[in-house]
Amino acid sequence: MIEPASLPKAKDKLLFTPGPLTTSLSVKQAMLHDAGSWHFEFNTLVAGVRERLLSLAGLTREAGWEAVLLQGSGTFGVEAVFQTCVPPTGKVAVLANGAYGERMVQMLRYAKIAHTAVRAAEDTPHDPEDLDELLGKDQEVTHVAVVHCETTTGILNPIEALGRITQTHRRIYVVDAMSSFGAIPIDFARCGVDFLISSANKCVEGVPGFSFVLCRRALLMKCEGYARSLSLDLLGQFKTFEKTGQFRYTPPTHALLAFEQALSEFELEGGVAGRGDRYHHNHQALLAGMGELGFQPYLDAAVQSYIITAFHTPADPRFSFDAFYRKLSDRGYIIYPGKLTEVDTFRIGTIGRLFPADIEQLVQAIRAVLSEMGCAVPVAMR
Amino acid sequence: MIEPASLPKAKDKLLFTPGPLTTSLSVKQAMLHDAGSWHFEFNTLVAGVRERLLSLAGLTREAGWEAVLLQGSGTFGVEAVFQTCVPPTGKVAVLANGAYGERMVQMLRYAKIAHTAVRAAEDTPHDPEDLDELLGKDQEVTHVAVVHCETTTGILNPIEALGRITQTHRRIYVVDAMSSFGAIPIDFARCGVDFLISSANKCVEGVPGFSFVLCRRALLMKCEGYARSLSLDLLGQFKTFEKTGQFRYTPPTHALLAFEQALSEFELEGGVAGRGDRYHHNHQALLAGMGELGFQPYLDAAVQSYIITAFHTPADPRFSFDAFYRKLSDRGYIIYPGKLTEVDTFRIGTIGRLFPADIEQLVQAIRAVLSEMGCAVPVAMR
Repeated sequence: MIEPASLPKAKDKLLFTPGPLTTSLSVKQAMLHDAGSWHFEFNTLVAGVRERLLSLAGLTREAGWEAVLLQGSGTFGVEAVFQTCVPPTGKVAVLANGAYGERMVQMLRYAKIAHTAVRAAEDTPHDPEDLDELLGKDQEVTHVAVVHCETTTGILNPIEALGRITQTHRRIYVVDAMSSFGAIPIDFARCGVDFLISSANKCVEGVPGFSFVLCRRALLMKCEGYARSLSLDLLGQFKTFEKTGQFRYTPPTHALLAFEQALSEFELEGGVAGRGDRYHHNHQALLAGMGELGFQPYLDAAVQSYIITAFHTPADPRFSFDAFYRKLSDRGYIIYPGKLTEVDTFRIGTIGRLFPADIEQLVQAIRAVLSEMGCAVPVAMR
Repeated sequence: MIEPASLPKAKDKLLFTPGPLTTSLSVKQAMLHDAGSWHFEFNTLVAGVRERLLSLAGLTREAGWEAVLLQGSGTFGVEAVFQTCVPPTGKVAVLANGAYGERMVQMLRYAKIAHTAVRAAEDTPHDPEDLDELLGKDQEVTHVAVVHCETTTGILNPIEALGRITQTHRRIYVVDAMSSFGAIPIDFARCGVDFLISSANKCVEGVPGFSFVLCRRALLMKCEGYARSLSLDLLGQFKTFEKTGQFRYTPPTHALLAFEQALSEFELEGGVAGRGDRYHHNHQALLAGMGELGFQPYLDAAVQSYIITAFHTPADPRFSFDAFYRKLSDRGYIIYPGKLTEVDTFRIGTIGRLFPADIEQLVQAIRAVLSEMGCAVPVAMR
């Protein structure tokens, strides 16, 4: 018999990752067309996508909000906000408790933008009182930046409480909501968000190719002349959308066609509430199933999101993550490695076109793989 | 009868543009899958794409060449080369004769990189003797940058002769070959190319989502610490490919799947020679057909590429470009507006999954639209 892993399969492997995700077939089928990036029909589609993103977030242009799309991954979107919107005299306080917070620090270092990194432990949300103290002491800080759901662990930071402090101190508030936007409700007014970044291939369940920034128009318009990069000039991008209806430079046309379809399916599912509900059920199914197998989540339930969950690696010496990963892949399930430096973990995402039944099948596959590896179930933990 | 334009059509409109292009159905069908961006199967695909890009260009890693892919449009790739590879003390001489040369100047201004713009008229290729004189006089210039095929007009710059001069003066040579790479032969050794940029949605006939840079590894490795942007750090991107086989940040996975298929179809067509031959025939069919209708190309034949052709707008007062464009669109043909500031032109691209028969049908449609508009054929020119 030919090695099963090398024979083409009837269906794609399911992605239990923080994105790119498993998407619906209909989202992918929307890409079976070539659109002219200068053409009025495509411009209409882009305008619709921008409107619907605002509406998804409960925002309107009339109330002063804009959605600006930018080519590249989510990281490009976050960096574009910093490169465009922090004045030469600005200083950013980054609240970091994971790899994505650290990435913000790295961006600011590259761009030679003044910043201060406030670090919390990777299993601990940022404390609004600490921020209050920092902003009281450091009058140079003009911007506060935080990651909503740190996919390093799946932890949620309290963006509403942190935002209230930021507002009280009259600083600009930048939220990286890459993996939460669309699935965890975000009240822009209560959070006092000024700039929020997410991307096409997260909870809206589109394909990768662009990020988007939801922001207050008046704040963006004040950033004239700050941008340190042409490609990452968010204001230039916005002004071109306004003037011509087009992307400034070649857009990922197929990713936009897919995203339009993804938005329709998002609305069909009941918007943020419906999508979040499914992910919540996925997460519950995962915790229940993994719990039966003896796995322990890394985070306390109180700070854990339903987006992605980090689990401790079992203590059993017969367990090897590489073999575990490969064997699950052979069975059609792709999970995600850990990203923590000090603790051995692996991660399982519960977003994308996945349902509780898929999670249950994954758990069954994990049980079978553990047995193949000779690990006792429930697994021994440290 | 319902207005035909609003009824869904049996096939997509054909794109006679400089890209995004009309691609084959099989290239688009390759996107009907979701790939894990961290997964070893996807890494193998990315490694294969990088190898095949080098091979397409007649280069090898053994001889010191690398292919680095970067998320975003072609502009992101060009800017990444400048932002990463020009040292703080560097100075770039940009040879501009169109919008894309001017865009390079704009990028350098944003990044506060010293530069000098050498401008030629938009219908005139850059003169190697002028470059020789400039480099003799200005010892501060460290890099020379030029656009191979300026799609503003379709003009070809003599990258081999300009490269010889650049080599003689021992400066670094950056070539934007966005719309020529893959269809016009480029001899890297004879041209003395150090960095060449192109993108997925041009002559390889993939879909938009990433650009790529072909460069000398040793030169790239010398750029440690220069990058002014994290997202556009080409060296960081390269080092991550080498270390992990992965993109640093989320790649446009579907665009990569499409590109792998596009490379196979490119090889099947006979590589650069085969692809170039088809485009050449497309261009010949276009010139013949448009000539019969009385249209005059903007450029002299000697400097005109077979990539895209600018035509003068007819003098007939009944001719309106907007109506012409819309009526052609209604018939399923999307052409491209002009980009020249001083002369009224429009453009027709002859790249993408188009054949001479498609060009002939476009010409027939143009004839019919002229008649609808009441313009006499052959059209009156200024």
